[in-house]
Amino acid sequence: MLFALYLIAISAEAMSAALASRRSRIDLFGVAVIGSIAGLGGGTLRDVLLGQYPLTWVARPWLLLVTAGSALVAALVASRLQRLRTTFLLLDAMGLVVFTLIGNRIALDLGHSGWTAAIFGLITGCAGGVLRDVLCNEVPLLLRRELYASISVIVSALYLACLALDLPATLATLLALVVGLTLRMLTVRFNWHLPTLEAPRDER
Amino acid sequence: MLFALYLIAISAEAMSAALASRRSRIDLFGVAVIGSIAGLGGGTLRDVLLGQYPLTWVARPWLLLVTAGSALVAALVASRLQRLRTTFLLLDAMGLVVFTLIGNRIALDLGHSGWTAAIFGLITGCAGGVLRDVLCNEVPLLLRRELYASISVIVSALYLACLALDLPATLATLLALVVGLTLRMLTVRFNWHLPTLEAPRDER
Amino acid sequence: MLFALYLIAISAEAMSAALASRRSRIDLFGVAVIGSIAGLGGGTLRDVLLGQYPLTWVARPWLLLVTAGSALVAALVASRLQRLRTTFLLLDAMGLVVFTLIGNRIALDLGHSGWTAAIFGLITGCAGGVLRDVLCNEVPLLLRRELYASISVIVSALYLACLALDLPATLATLLALVVGLTLRMLTVRFNWHLPTLEAPRDER
Repeated sequence: MLFALYLIAISAEAMSAALASRRSRIDLFGVAVIGSIAGLGGGTLRDVLLGQYPLTWVARPWLLLVTAGSALVAALVASRLQRLRTTFLLLDAMGLVVFTLIGNRIALDLGHSGWTAAIFGLITGCAGGVLRDVLCNEVPLLLRRELYASISVIVSALYLACLALDLPATLATLLALVVGLTLRMLTVRFNWHLPTLEAPRDER
Repeated sequence: MLFALYLIAISAEAMSAALASRRSRIDLFGVAVIGSIAGLGGGTLRDVLLGQYPLTWVARPWLLLVTAGSALVAALVASRLQRLRTTFLLLDAMGLVVFTLIGNRIALDLGHSGWTAAIFGLITGCAGGVLRDVLCNEVPLLLRRELYASISVIVSALYLACLALDLPATLATLLALVVGLTLRMLTVRFNWHLPTLEAPRDER
Repeated sequence: MLFALYLIAISAEAMSAALASRRSRIDLFGVAVIGSIAGLGGGTLRDVLLGQYPLTWVARPWLLLVTAGSALVAALVASRLQRLRTTFLLLDAMGLVVFTLIGNRIALDLGHSGWTAAIFGLITGCAGGVLRDVLCNEVPLLLRRELYASISVIVSALYLACLALDLPATLATLLALVVGLTLRMLTVRFNWHLPTLEAPRDER
């Protein structure tokens, strides 16, 4: 089940990146590259930081066709996707939660502590979006607003707490998915965010 | 022969980066760093993604002297280089093709498929330029125009097809070089490019 | 002793990043992330390039609490820190020197040459700041001015020369610290810098 969710998640991230990159005057090839980096970059960074080889997409290069294809489709039918905004936001939120859980799982399976597992959940869930924004020459959205990263942390905490209480892994996964999706929808609906720090004018 | 071409290629990329970085108010030390990253970054990313250690320039630190030196020379004699534009473009194109072929070769030698070999050709050929543009705070040229990356893909396809047909590796290399250089000259001469996607005004 | 210095160094870099990031409208979570990347990113890049696993902060996740905490404290008491500017600059300079020496040490211990050790001193000392600037969407300060990187190179040269002369490691460390701190203070005080290359107007 997690693998099916994973495929949906990398496609959703690739599509999201394709839509975001339209502001940066990127050509069709660039869209495919940005989409693949957004969809697979988080997992790649995680595996490089953990020294886990071969990387997912090196072992299964067809995953790149999935991400590149999703990005191109999203770029070409962009106007229609605007109308599917809620569906799309839901897929994107699912991507964040699924990536976080996969990151948790992999770190735990390597024998790391819960703290480390939460960090790798965050890296897997968010690094793809950060790479996307750096390549599009923008300050990463992650660092600026919308509690995106905070949801990854909450999902990790919930998942790890469930496992510590000896709940079955499937139940923990489902619970984390439901809570994560709900929270993400609420943050977008009510525009929740953390305080931003700004330098006073006279220091600039 | 490939090693001599490799040395020319890393120098050409370093020089190209030195010229490009002049718009970003970078000092002489920065020019040496940017040149080295542009010349050796593609191969470094490839080896980190493949988990191949030690990295080329860790085993042979004098390669850094080649790239830093080339970048500084290019920065200092920049006005003369403007007149050598065609020679320079030819060296740069050779860099792209040689890096692509080296990336193909290394992935194949590790037992990866042709698909994976093409991806690593692309990474080796293009990542140095992407890192250069990110450090100079610009949207990578690769993602924007000029079919630069497409040539890497075509060169890989040609090289891998030649090998699949049991042609000798030297012949395949020569053929790929000639076709790649010709294509690159043609794209610059006739300003070929892929369509760019732009967000309609009212979505911005 | 080097470990105590290391802890001060990563805190100082995290605080410096928190102050620098205030111009980029980053929220509190983003400040913690940027601080951690600035404090631990140089060492992380070094270990990934050397293929040394596990990474420091994977083995000791509490280091992330140190960097995230330092960054948040610095962000919250930013106005007071302005008055502690000299103390802060001193800590930051110490970070540069300590990171450089740690990078030297690790490369030497792995059996690499003095050249390679100096390169890894530079990477450990400077990459955190480069990552910070790329994430804040600015051309890295390192590449632009203030001889920051040059001090890393001088410190490495001095340290390696002391070791080659069979001086005890502690003496070499102390000497490098004193010279590095003095140089850094002098470059800031007298605004020393390397020449910047700029494209003539008509080429832009």
